[in-house]
Amino acid sequence: MSEFAAETRAVDSACWQALRRHAERLGSVPLRALLAEGDVRVERLHCAAGPWHADFSKQRIDESSLAALLALARAAGIEGRRDQLFAGERVNVTEDRAALHVALRGSADPGIQVEGVDVADDIAGSFAKLGEFVEAVRAGRITGYSGRPLRHIVNLGIGGSDLGPRMAVRALRAHSLPELRLHFVANLDGADLASTLAHCPAAETLVIVASKTFTTQETLANARSVRAWLEQAVTAAGLPAGVATNQFASVTANLDRAREFGIPDACIFPFRDWVGGRYSLWSSVGLPLALAIGMNGFAQLLAGAAAIDHHFRSAPLEANLPVWLALIDIWNLDFLGAESHAMLPYSDSLALLPAYLQQLEMESNGKSVRADGTPVGCPTAPVIWGEAGTVGQHSFYQLLHQGGRLIPCDFIAFAEADFDLPGHHDALLAHCLAQSAALALGKTLAEATSELSAAGHDPATVARLAPHKVFPGNQPSTTLIAHRLTAESLGALIALHEHKVFVQAAIWGLNPFDQWGVEYGKVLAARLLPQVAAGRTDPIEDASTRAAIAIIAALRARRRS
Amino acid sequence: MSEFAAETRAVDSACWQALRRHAERLGSVPLRALLAEGDVRVERLHCAAGPWHADFSKQRIDESSLAALLALARAAGIEGRRDQLFAGERVNVTEDRAALHVALRGSADPGIQVEGVDVADDIAGSFAKLGEFVEAVRAGRITGYSGRPLRHIVNLGIGGSDLGPRMAVRALRAHSLPELRLHFVANLDGADLASTLAHCPAAETLVIVASKTFTTQETLANARSVRAWLEQAVTAAGLPAGVATNQFASVTANLDRAREFGIPDACIFPFRDWVGGRYSLWSSVGLPLALAIGMNGFAQLLAGAAAIDHHFRSAPLEANLPVWLALIDIWNLDFLGAESHAMLPYSDSLALLPAYLQQLEMESNGKSVRADGTPVGCPTAPVIWGEAGTVGQHSFYQLLHQGGRLIPCDFIAFAEADFDLPGHHDALLAHCLAQSAALALGKTLAEATSELSAAGHDPATVARLAPHKVFPGNQPSTTLIAHRLTAESLGALIALHEHKVFVQAAIWGLNPFDQWGVEYGKVLAARLLPQVAAGRTDPIEDASTRAAIAIIAALRARRRS
Repeated sequence: MSEFAAETRAVDSACWQALRRHAERLGSVPLRALLAEGDVRVERLHCAAGPWHADFSKQRIDESSLAALLALARAAGIEGRRDQLFAGERVNVTEDRAALHVALRGSADPGIQVEGVDVADDIAGSFAKLGEFVEAVRAGRITGYSGRPLRHIVNLGIGGSDLGPRMAVRALRAHSLPELRLHFVANLDGADLASTLAHCPAAETLVIVASKTFTTQETLANARSVRAWLEQAVTAAGLPAGVATNQFASVTANLDRAREFGIPDACIFPFRDWVGGRYSLWSSVGLPLALAIGMNGFAQLLAGAAAIDHHFRSAPLEANLPVWLALIDIWNLDFLGAESHAMLPYSDSLALLPAYLQQLEMESNGKSVRADGTPVGCPTAPVIWGEAGTVGQHSFYQLLHQGGRLIPCDFIAFAEADFDLPGHHDALLAHCLAQSAALALGKTLAEATSELSAAGHDPATVARLAPHKVFPGNQPSTTLIAHRLTAESLGALIALHEHKVFVQAAIWGLNPFDQWGVEYGKVLAARLLPQVAAGRTDPIEDASTRAAIAIIAALRARRRS
Repeated sequence: MSEFAAETRAVDSACWQALRRHAERLGSVPLRALLAEGDVRVERLHCAAGPWHADFSKQRIDESSLAALLALARAAGIEGRRDQLFAGERVNVTEDRAALHVALRGSADPGIQVEGVDVADDIAGSFAKLGEFVEAVRAGRITGYSGRPLRHIVNLGIGGSDLGPRMAVRALRAHSLPELRLHFVANLDGADLASTLAHCPAAETLVIVASKTFTTQETLANARSVRAWLEQAVTAAGLPAGVATNQFASVTANLDRAREFGIPDACIFPFRDWVGGRYSLWSSVGLPLALAIGMNGFAQLLAGAAAIDHHFRSAPLEANLPVWLALIDIWNLDFLGAESHAMLPYSDSLALLPAYLQQLEMESNGKSVRADGTPVGCPTAPVIWGEAGTVGQHSFYQLLHQGGRLIPCDFIAFAEADFDLPGHHDALLAHCLAQSAALALGKTLAEATSELSAAGHDPATVARLAPHKVFPGNQPSTTLIAHRLTAESLGALIALHEHKVFVQAAIWGLNPFDQWGVEYGKVLAARLLPQVAAGRTDPIEDASTRAAIAIIAALRARRRS
């Protein structure tokens, strides 16, 4: 704890002041002017790691401001923090524990022990148990109550127990076992579960209850409802109630509760205290993904992440991709004033990546207080949002081009398609490159005017329309390119972002591994539940909440009368 | 055109200056203090329309600032603009045409003609044709090449031809014909189509090609690929090629092109010039929804919207819900400085609403130039984002609570569930109410400290943890409540937002019905396509684009070698 508290706040450092001056100097230099430097700039602002190539030349930086950013990272002691992470130190200081997701891909230092257990041994054991189960389900050796193989997998989990496997299963659908259907149910709203079960034959459905504590309200409510559904189906088939027990599995740290729920030990897979929910895809939480792509595929995901771990540990800051990603974001957020960051994968299979990164970044670094309890003093994580290209082009890109807001964008593309239909992929790539160019370079009034004139419009029409065809440009972006979307390149992509978040947290002085901000609402909800259920407003202090409960009760009564 | 151009810019008006003073005055008054006023405030800041109740008491306004906002709306001539819209005037000034989506729900003035055709007659004819087709498909009277009924519907469309029906089909899944499976394919990326067709039996699949111009690149690429897939299946079945012609339908304004593609006239449904893509759910673009819920359900959707049209036209500004929604946003964006707006439906069926509103708001008002070509002079549309509750609570809510960014939120809830599983819905509602209360009221350091002490922690732990358990609060939100998610309440909800966007545009002086900002990237992409396909960089001026093409070519070559 003390090591973190002792350090100077980033905003009070000399580096920070230097960066402010760079931002002032560059404020009036448009990207169009920066890009006019040509190949030299592009080469200098290229950075690669594992299968990924990143182009930062469309960011509003130059060599000297980049050098100042790298100095900031060095002054924040990034290298030391990184070594603490990989050494299994208790970097999650507010919760006083290690964050060992890197150990799950074999990247932590050897010999790390937690409560007397060797972490590497523990992981190997878990992986072996998971592998046996995964291959048995895939091969159809585990059957449901009617004797048919389990072909529908319903994952019950929320947050970190949902977003990772959900995103990755979609991302790797080209590599998945076609006869397995994967479903994800997260919401407390019964509509999520009910509409999913409508497409699942009970006798062929495997249910995974993924909850670290086995007490997560959403997951447990869904687990109870699904158990009732399964019991009803079993009874309707004239079979004894216990016959579908092996249609449940669990990923949890709370064995006792899982057993109490009726899940056999052979189907309970560990979720350790030293893995945070939003960093848990690499653990047994990845079970749905492993079922979809098999253990070899899952191992490739881990290997892709491990390659980035190695890069992060060994590359100098000047050529360290997660460090660059972190610094460019800090530049855009704290020096240029961006409030949000658009993630734009030009890959339909990666459509859920923005939602995944939303949790990773906003829950990790959406904080204003440093690990030592003092204020950070500058803006931290942005709003992460976005959609797959080209879909977003027909929706919100209008605002990116002409809305007048500074919104840094990350474009993500693959040289080759995961599903190769003739005539689709080259056009997709052309759009990706065209958008980042248009956002950066813009189009001036003179250019718009001459284009309209050249198209034969009369002068009045030209004058009327030209202002609407001006693009201010100067919208910064990073483009990430890999060969193909595979388990390996996906693992690398996620690990890049995990380490990016870690570097940012280190600079801001935050603990990226806690999430105290989610507790208050939960406590309040538990307190309000009996009032909502009874339509009673009396012991509630807040008039707005009271009014809402009264409206709900009145609407329900109108229906009943 | 002149009427719009002649007016004073909002930012130059006396109202605007008055609002700046209100914002300054209220800047130091926290929501906790405002809400302490109790029931009086809540009653005063309640506004209802059709089935919807809205509570604005958790916005950072008071009565006098609200009065100033209403004065701004009046000064902008909202009432006159509104009448122009309903009278079918050419409110889409830059494209010189009317915006008659309100006519599709029977709300426009009678007798409106476009190019000599009575719009109401035209709509009635289209509705009848659509209805016949819809009921024939639903009843299984239209069959595929093997004689089996069409049970899989694949909608090919993007932007406005996709987001509306996709969102509404999910929203109304509780009211849908269970034997029909609706699929939506939008992306140019072949992965979207290929992964969808993997679950569609060719002989039972109806394909809808939805494109106003029948030239949209994404939709046509997908249409050609799906035709090849269907022809292959027909050939494999030993049948003649033309046998699956009636498995295609189209929603388009370009009849000739649709016919050329091979779609029979009986299956072509009109998409008129006077309907904008993002306002087109009410037209034949709603075909997938009509197939799912039937024509009676579709008529209820229209009726729900019509009720809001009536409200918008007749309620005084002081009790006009779309006007309030618009003004509160302008307050948050232009006076408090918010950059984004979170849409948080506590309804899993409404999970796609944020994506729908993203297009509606960001494409309509993501502009900086007034209809008359002059600069707006203030920020316009925000980034719209969000996820269904409770899902987002386990992801980005950390940032809403403790990230230190001002992010107005809209909570949307229903008194009763659309899928009623025991134990789910009351808890869902309790979370919705708890979150808006926690965001508004926050928790002070003194409160956090005394809670930790009461829980028995030692003083050192209390002091260490308390700063992490502080919630600054003061995060504004609106809560919208209706009885139940039905076609009617959905239609009303969408119409509320359409009119909200219209009011904002009128105040900012924008034309919400054009989207010039999407053109530039398209043109550039067409120019880059041959280069990407050939891996040639030579005639490209921008070094960054050149480098990307070279990387793509190198990655592809490595694979081939």
